[in-house]
Amino acid sequence: MWNKVEEGSMEISMEDEGSRKKRKNSPVLLKKMKKTLKNLWNFGKEDPRRVIHALKVGVSLTFVSLLYLMEPFFKGVGKNALWAVMTVVVVLEFSAGATLRKGLNRGLGTLIAGSLAYFIEFVALHSGKVLGGIFIGTAIFIIGSTITYMRFIPYIKKNYDYGMLVFLLTFNLITVSSYRVDTVIKIAHERLYTIGMGIGICLFMSLLVFPIWSGDDLHKSTVNKLQGLSRCIEACVSEYFKEKEKDKETSDSESDDEEIIYKGYKTVLDSKSTDEALAMYARWEPRHTRRCHKFPSQQYIKVGSVLRKFGYNVVALHGCLKTEIQTPRSIRVLFKDPCVRLAREICKVLSELSESIRDRRHCSPEILSDSLEVALKDLNSTIKSQPKLFLGSNLHGDITNKHLNGSVSYYNETNLNAVVSNHNDNNSNGGVLGQTMEQSDTVAPLRLNNSVSLSNSTLDRRSVKKSAVTGDRRRIRKQLSKVAVMKSLEFSEALPFAAFASLLVEMVARLDNVIDEVEELGTIACFKEYDKTVEVRIEKPVD
Amino acid sequence: MWNKVEEGSMEISMEDEGSRKKRKNSPVLLKKMKKTLKNLWNFGKEDPRRVIHALKVGVSLTFVSLLYLMEPFFKGVGKNALWAVMTVVVVLEFSAGATLRKGLNRGLGTLIAGSLAYFIEFVALHSGKVLGGIFIGTAIFIIGSTITYMRFIPYIKKNYDYGMLVFLLTFNLITVSSYRVDTVIKIAHERLYTIGMGIGICLFMSLLVFPIWSGDDLHKSTVNKLQGLSRCIEACVSEYFKEKEKDKETSDSESDDEEIIYKGYKTVLDSKSTDEALAMYARWEPRHTRRCHKFPSQQYIKVGSVLRKFGYNVVALHGCLKTEIQTPRSIRVLFKDPCVRLAREICKVLSELSESIRDRRHCSPEILSDSLEVALKDLNSTIKSQPKLFLGSNLHGDITNKHLNGSVSYYNETNLNAVVSNHNDNNSNGGVLGQTMEQSDTVAPLRLNNSVSLSNSTLDRRSVKKSAVTGDRRRIRKQLSKVAVMKSLEFSEALPFAAFASLLVEMVARLDNVIDEVEELGTIACFKEYDKTVEVRIEKPVD
Repeated sequence: MWNKVEEGSMEISMEDEGSRKKRKNSPVLLKKMKKTLKNLWNFGKEDPRRVIHALKVGVSLTFVSLLYLMEPFFKGVGKNALWAVMTVVVVLEFSAGATLRKGLNRGLGTLIAGSLAYFIEFVALHSGKVLGGIFIGTAIFIIGSTITYMRFIPYIKKNYDYGMLVFLLTFNLITVSSYRVDTVIKIAHERLYTIGMGIGICLFMSLLVFPIWSGDDLHKSTVNKLQGLSRCIEACVSEYFKEKEKDKETSDSESDDEEIIYKGYKTVLDSKSTDEALAMYARWEPRHTRRCHKFPSQQYIKVGSVLRKFGYNVVALHGCLKTEIQTPRSIRVLFKDPCVRLAREICKVLSELSESIRDRRHCSPEILSDSLEVALKDLNSTIKSQPKLFLGSNLHGDITNKHLNGSVSYYNETNLNAVVSNHNDNNSNGGVLGQTMEQSDTVAPLRLNNSVSLSNSTLDRRSVKKSAVTGDRRRIRKQLSKVAVMKSLEFSEALPFAAFASLLVEMVARLDNVIDEVEELGTIACFKEYDKTVEVRIEKPVD
Repeated sequence: MWNKVEEGSMEISMEDEGSRKKRKNSPVLLKKMKKTLKNLWNFGKEDPRRVIHALKVGVSLTFVSLLYLMEPFFKGVGKNALWAVMTVVVVLEFSAGATLRKGLNRGLGTLIAGSLAYFIEFVALHSGKVLGGIFIGTAIFIIGSTITYMRFIPYIKKNYDYGMLVFLLTFNLITVSSYRVDTVIKIAHERLYTIGMGIGICLFMSLLVFPIWSGDDLHKSTVNKLQGLSRCIEACVSEYFKEKEKDKETSDSESDDEEIIYKGYKTVLDSKSTDEALAMYARWEPRHTRRCHKFPSQQYIKVGSVLRKFGYNVVALHGCLKTEIQTPRSIRVLFKDPCVRLAREICKVLSELSESIRDRRHCSPEILSDSLEVALKDLNSTIKSQPKLFLGSNLHGDITNKHLNGSVSYYNETNLNAVVSNHNDNNSNGGVLGQTMEQSDTVAPLRLNNSVSLSNSTLDRRSVKKSAVTGDRRRIRKQLSKVAVMKSLEFSEALPFAAFASLLVEMVARLDNVIDEVEELGTIACFKEYDKTVEVRIEKPVD
């Protein structure tokens, strides 16, 4: 979701730049402005909470301004009302956790800085004008350097960075002004009072008026990630076994698949920093459900990290769709059913996990069902039943590249004998294997994946812009690299499929870790027990 | 580097918490404090620029405080000197780019807000006390909401977030105070003047006194990432073919390897957000070398993203070391030499790329050398010379799991014949293959990877703490999952090695993309031409 938004806004910005350049033709400008406005509208439509937050800030600011604008309030608070305005602008953030974090940081920072400044002022007052000035200057230098250095420490940076900044700011302001103003303590006191009012308004607005909880966002993003991965694996496998012959017709649905796959794992892999930010804010949020003691933000981070590890596997699986060397479709098709079945079982587990988190319940104890085992067994026996996976391609390689492989011809001939005997055995038994053999023999010389030709063409387009020297250098290298690719094509055709199958099997093993962490999450977050009736979707109140 | 630091500081923080609890036994406290201080010291030693920056802030603050503390300055600037102090605290950042970005944002925000506030004040002044108040209140609401909404737009959030905040702050302060103070324009003017002074000091400090350039950081991090990947691949491959028999002795070097591998790809995979931040700051930095027009921050980001894609492959390769099913070492050892050679060639290319970026020169046109092709060819022929990779394990599987695979026994028997005939052929020729066959037959039943038993034991430990219900649920599931793992063990032992080899070959293909982007970087950043003399390390001045 966020990625889409980002792209959209990049469009906006690009349009802005474009519109600046083409200010002459105003109809174009008008059109672009209309589009920009529309984008802005869609941007709000996508996540209406943004609009709500914007309105909340507007209301808070107006409210706090009344302290200054309206006579009775002004008499009470006076000029210091400006500090309340400042506080509201700076502290009110999107989510409740972020606001609390900033508000408490600001409050604490101001308090501690005030106390320290009071001490410094006390010493400075009793040591004369010149000495006092030197003392204040030295204190400012030491405190400034120390605090800045401490802000680098990751733990402090993560939790108290803003507090440190406010501390530095307040300390300097009070210390410096105490040198010329005697009533500085009174001023500081009044200021603290108005800052407190500002923080109060912020907390009221963010905790009680349409509150936005980072914890909920984190929860939802975890659910979405699991769903995305599940969809991604499904799309990957179906794409792998799709027949490329009906190329033109299916190109649309293919790019759809591509998008699902890409989005599925990209959301998971890129989630680290956003998740950590959400978890950090969530830690400051008070418990807002009756259910559990504390929001288990750390456990959500752990689930995220396990999912990322799982995601690397999915990327590798997706990589199998894009390899330069491809197992011929005729061979792949032999393994279609067991692979698809296994993938479906994996997806089922992921979906169950996602649903269990969404409904805040433990997942089914039979989550690793028998059918997963059956699917694994099935793939196993299918692979075992096709022993000429390597041999077949080897034979093929022999025919096309015989002149290149002089050094290994001895071994190949040996293999050839074995293959032929195998082949004959199968044929005489009239098995499926014989047919396969013929299929794989009639396959056209190895095809390069589309992506190779694509990268070549984009390269050509790019190189037009380049200087002749770079172009030459690139061309030489490109030829070399093409040679490398060609050479690599001599590899066994079965190798890529073996990788694909191995990754699928490995995925099953990694599922365990994911389930472990999700279960742990369920325990810490006091999810309700698994209830069979939930599964059959009968709406029965569970306590 | 950063990771290490983070751990270190987490220790610090934990110690802090620990020390708070154990305040009673002061010797322990003293010890802990000593350790904390030592950690702080090491933290600065790791990147001395942190200390420099802290001192810079201290000096700037002292300097700006003099405006207030010293009589002649104070007469000129007056109370508004406080705004200069405030500006320095808020604007002075670690790198030059970040400071410029904040300074310009602050300056622009203040200016625009001032102008708008002036207009609002003008209208409000001419519409009476009550109407004016209402007008100001409405303006604050509308501007507050709009600006807050606009701050969500990623493009603005990325570049002008701070400017927007300052705009909102200044606008509100001026508009509100203009209601009661008539000389607000004069005040705003003076304030702008002192804010300008503050920004001036910040820019002077960050651009001219020990400047820290984000662009350089980005450059260095790219070089490090390439080196890390290279080391990581090397370690992965050597780990894969290492003999596990001398377990106890090598456990130290093994964990070292593990750390190299983990760090190598983790730095690459986690680099997204830091890279983007660095690139964003770098965009604000003025050109500081004579060499090139503009810092190509976008291209560095592209290199980073290509490296991340490459990194996924490395993770998958590392995954091969950790799979639940493992190809027996006796089989692996057959492919050791070609795999190690290929990996070494890949690492060579990565190192050359890293060095070329480090020295700001184009990479060698022969970067995809003949030896890479030879290595590929070599692996190819070795794999082809071992056709019973699948068969051998199949035979093995047949013997151990015969009773389980009734349904496929027909195929297996067929294969068996083929294998035996193959076997005999080889033996009669006295080839290496015959020996291998025997080796792989004598291999003990498939071993589970350490990680499985590890995860079980940690689980056991954890489950002690759990309630009985959860424990039960987990136990049931665990048994199921173990069954699943056991089932998966029936898979061909060669499958994981095929995946390993396939990933290595795929890596060669992906190298192309990396080289493309690095070349593009060299062109945009006007790197110097490749010079052979550089390669043989003769220090000859290159223009």
